[in-house]
Amino acid sequence: MNYKMISWLMGQIIRVLGLLMLLPLLVSLIYHEPESMKAFLIMAVGLVVIGTLITLKKPENKDIYTREGMATVALTWILVSILGALPYVLSGEIPNLADAIFETASGFTTTGSTILNDIESMSKACLFWRSFSHFLGGMGVLILMLAVMPQNDTKTMHLVRAESAGPTAGKLTAKMSSSIRTLYIIYIGLTALETILLLFSKMNFFEAINTAFSTAGTGGFGLTNHSITDYDSAYIDVIITIFMLLFSINFTLYYLLLTKKFSQVFQNEELRFFLSIVAGSSLLIAFNIMPIYGNFLHSLRYSSFQVLTMISTAGFATADFTEWPFFSQMILLLLMFVGGCAGSTGGGLKVMRILILCKTAFREIKRVLNPRAVVSVKCDGRAVDKEIVHGISFYFVVFMLLSAVSMLLLSLDGHDIPTTVTAVITCLNNVGPGLNEISPSGNFSGFSSWAKILLSLDMLLGRLEIYPMLVLFTIRKNKKI
Amino acid sequence: MNYKMISWLMGQIIRVLGLLMLLPLLVSLIYHEPESMKAFLIMAVGLVVIGTLITLKKPENKDIYTREGMATVALTWILVSILGALPYVLSGEIPNLADAIFETASGFTTTGSTILNDIESMSKACLFWRSFSHFLGGMGVLILMLAVMPQNDTKTMHLVRAESAGPTAGKLTAKMSSSIRTLYIIYIGLTALETILLLFSKMNFFEAINTAFSTAGTGGFGLTNHSITDYDSAYIDVIITIFMLLFSINFTLYYLLLTKKFSQVFQNEELRFFLSIVAGSSLLIAFNIMPIYGNFLHSLRYSSFQVLTMISTAGFATADFTEWPFFSQMILLLLMFVGGCAGSTGGGLKVMRILILCKTAFREIKRVLNPRAVVSVKCDGRAVDKEIVHGISFYFVVFMLLSAVSMLLLSLDGHDIPTTVTAVITCLNNVGPGLNEISPSGNFSGFSSWAKILLSLDMLLGRLEIYPMLVLFTIRKNKKI
Repeated sequence: MNYKMISWLMGQIIRVLGLLMLLPLLVSLIYHEPESMKAFLIMAVGLVVIGTLITLKKPENKDIYTREGMATVALTWILVSILGALPYVLSGEIPNLADAIFETASGFTTTGSTILNDIESMSKACLFWRSFSHFLGGMGVLILMLAVMPQNDTKTMHLVRAESAGPTAGKLTAKMSSSIRTLYIIYIGLTALETILLLFSKMNFFEAINTAFSTAGTGGFGLTNHSITDYDSAYIDVIITIFMLLFSINFTLYYLLLTKKFSQVFQNEELRFFLSIVAGSSLLIAFNIMPIYGNFLHSLRYSSFQVLTMISTAGFATADFTEWPFFSQMILLLLMFVGGCAGSTGGGLKVMRILILCKTAFREIKRVLNPRAVVSVKCDGRAVDKEIVHGISFYFVVFMLLSAVSMLLLSLDGHDIPTTVTAVITCLNNVGPGLNEISPSGNFSGFSSWAKILLSLDMLLGRLEIYPMLVLFTIRKNKKI
Repeated sequence: MNYKMISWLMGQIIRVLGLLMLLPLLVSLIYHEPESMKAFLIMAVGLVVIGTLITLKKPENKDIYTREGMATVALTWILVSILGALPYVLSGEIPNLADAIFETASGFTTTGSTILNDIESMSKACLFWRSFSHFLGGMGVLILMLAVMPQNDTKTMHLVRAESAGPTAGKLTAKMSSSIRTLYIIYIGLTALETILLLFSKMNFFEAINTAFSTAGTGGFGLTNHSITDYDSAYIDVIITIFMLLFSINFTLYYLLLTKKFSQVFQNEELRFFLSIVAGSSLLIAFNIMPIYGNFLHSLRYSSFQVLTMISTAGFATADFTEWPFFSQMILLLLMFVGGCAGSTGGGLKVMRILILCKTAFREIKRVLNPRAVVSVKCDGRAVDKEIVHGISFYFVVFMLLSAVSMLLLSLDGHDIPTTVTAVITCLNNVGPGLNEISPSGNFSGFSSWAKILLSLDMLLGRLEIYPMLVLFTIRKNKKI
């Protein structure tokens, strides 16, 4: 382990985090909030000073390999979840540290679950910091740093790979620094576009940019206790629905669009599968809830919003789906596992994995029924490498075992089975809401402190796709590497 | 497809089923039940006549290959689920055919879920037929036929493999006929022993043998509305607990015991893993429910019974576990997936698969963290063949996808999410009870007819480990084979 390089990178992260806190500081100045101003000022100055001290001396050996990359990513995310929680504690708005860590982890991992009973009583600066953490976490904290820092080495590839979502990130090559910057420009561009479009509604600039941040990271934090429900505007619902869709698509496809490779985009199997699921689920639910909402278009507005909020793992709410028919609820519950496309800001298992898992299942059925037949899993017209197919199946096994262990531990906190089961599912998949106590009209405040920390870890495990977090627990055993 | 041989085998099955119905006929004569006597008489005579007519001419080509073996097994189980349901309908005790098929499928697949609101109003003959179907289904309907019929060819191997539970049945070789007979003798011996031991309690012979049948098949049908609760006897609880354990162990281990290969038995990793899970879960739950039952031994009696009833997938009840703390409920819920050892009468995914899945998960974590390390999955000291490791992971993927599809379809029937989810889990794993509407104090009568047929299919899919059932849906597409 290259501990010097890792601590240097941690120093950079601390410094960048300090600088990022200048934005909520600005918000507190604009809205004259002395308590949160003090909190963010202390944090910003403190973090920049500490970060600068740590990074004074750049280590000579800058090599970062797989395990170190994973450890760095895991440490980074734990660090920002703790440091990012301090302004809430310092300002007294979330006095309990476990609560604050849960809220921050939920922000950076773009889960969007909250422990707040009264969101509206929060200061504007803290509300901004919540939404902003979605925006930062969506693309990845380390990737942001790499986009900002001048980089000319390819050693950072392992960092990106460990932090990126989905099984396809390995393709990024030497030109990575510039492509990261391009992706970031697309990300910021889309967020800006959503903000502008939302300004045409009853939202003011503060509401618009916060909602855009939440959508961009597919996080789901809102500014009111009832998420998007209070606006009750078809225009806002449609805009957010469209942007949840856009932010759930593999960002490299936008890159292809910009370079006019249209056919590659439209033939992309993951995209087609994703759009079919979204369209199919939205229509099924729309028909199912028509008795509640009267006409079809009205139903479709609510169903498509809810489908995208679940599959993109944003977790916004325009309606309490736990009052919908059970068929609709079951679809939404299953969509939580799907998540966004690989290389998007959406959580979950990722559409690509689900696609390969479905194909693997069909291949396996064929293989068992015709033992002599040689059948390979194909995607985008090419056979998928066996290692990848196995890796995805194994990932699924690891994911399910981890869910089981989490559910078992969480059940010690004494919440009913649906609450416990969906709490783990929603946190591991970075979605947001669940059933019963944590339905869209409820929140996570009923859990005890240790349970909140456990769920925070689940969120981090889900966001980083399990393995980086596990490196931290195995470092001692493998001193050699 | 060798259709002639398959239909000849179906004829044999029909004839054997007819002969087996002589036993409940005898019961109806003993207890003077004219209605059920008529029903079983018609069925016995009818089936024997039809079966004999079909099997008059033995086909020349007796070859049965993998796909044909699977198709035969699937057809057999569907056939016995329908034909076995007719006595209930004819006697008027379960007038609705879908209800009767559900009850019979639940019997033969040893699930033990019931649609009966008032079990005690049933005739003795029908109650006997219910428990007896557990006994017959436990070891496998076709295996019974093979044990009875004089066999001198090894072509039947594909039948046994398709019907046997768990991933290890492939090892059976040329001596199969005689080893099947040995296994059957062990099975009958253990059942007889349990019957005798139960006679020392307040049970009469009829109650004792029916309970032993239910335990042997790890089915769970009882003779009263409250399963074993009404007896409220520690002696009965302990006896059933011990025999649920014995019937969940790989039967080949008893064969090894008989041939005095003790060390092989005690070093068997699946057995050790199984016993550890049982002991660990029983102790954890016992501590957890101590506030309810007062002293530790009393708690342990209930916890160990409930742990074994879930892991063996028998599904008996001595207490309504839905009134236990959620931690205990969660353990029991997870145990439903585990099931018995491979080669036992227990359902579920099988201990062997869970063991390999856990090892695969740990192997995969190691592999991702140390890409250069070569790590293989070991069991009983030897490396497990890669194909088997992959096959088990893929089976898990197929199983989970199938669960998701079933849950989605079942949710159309309008039951709450916990009921729907656990109904599918309990049926696919052949356990019996679930949560909410189908808790130990409830039953499946609330489902509509099509939902009962869907759940019956799930039970058959679970009992036959998915693939044989799927052959039936793919025969047309592959006419060649």
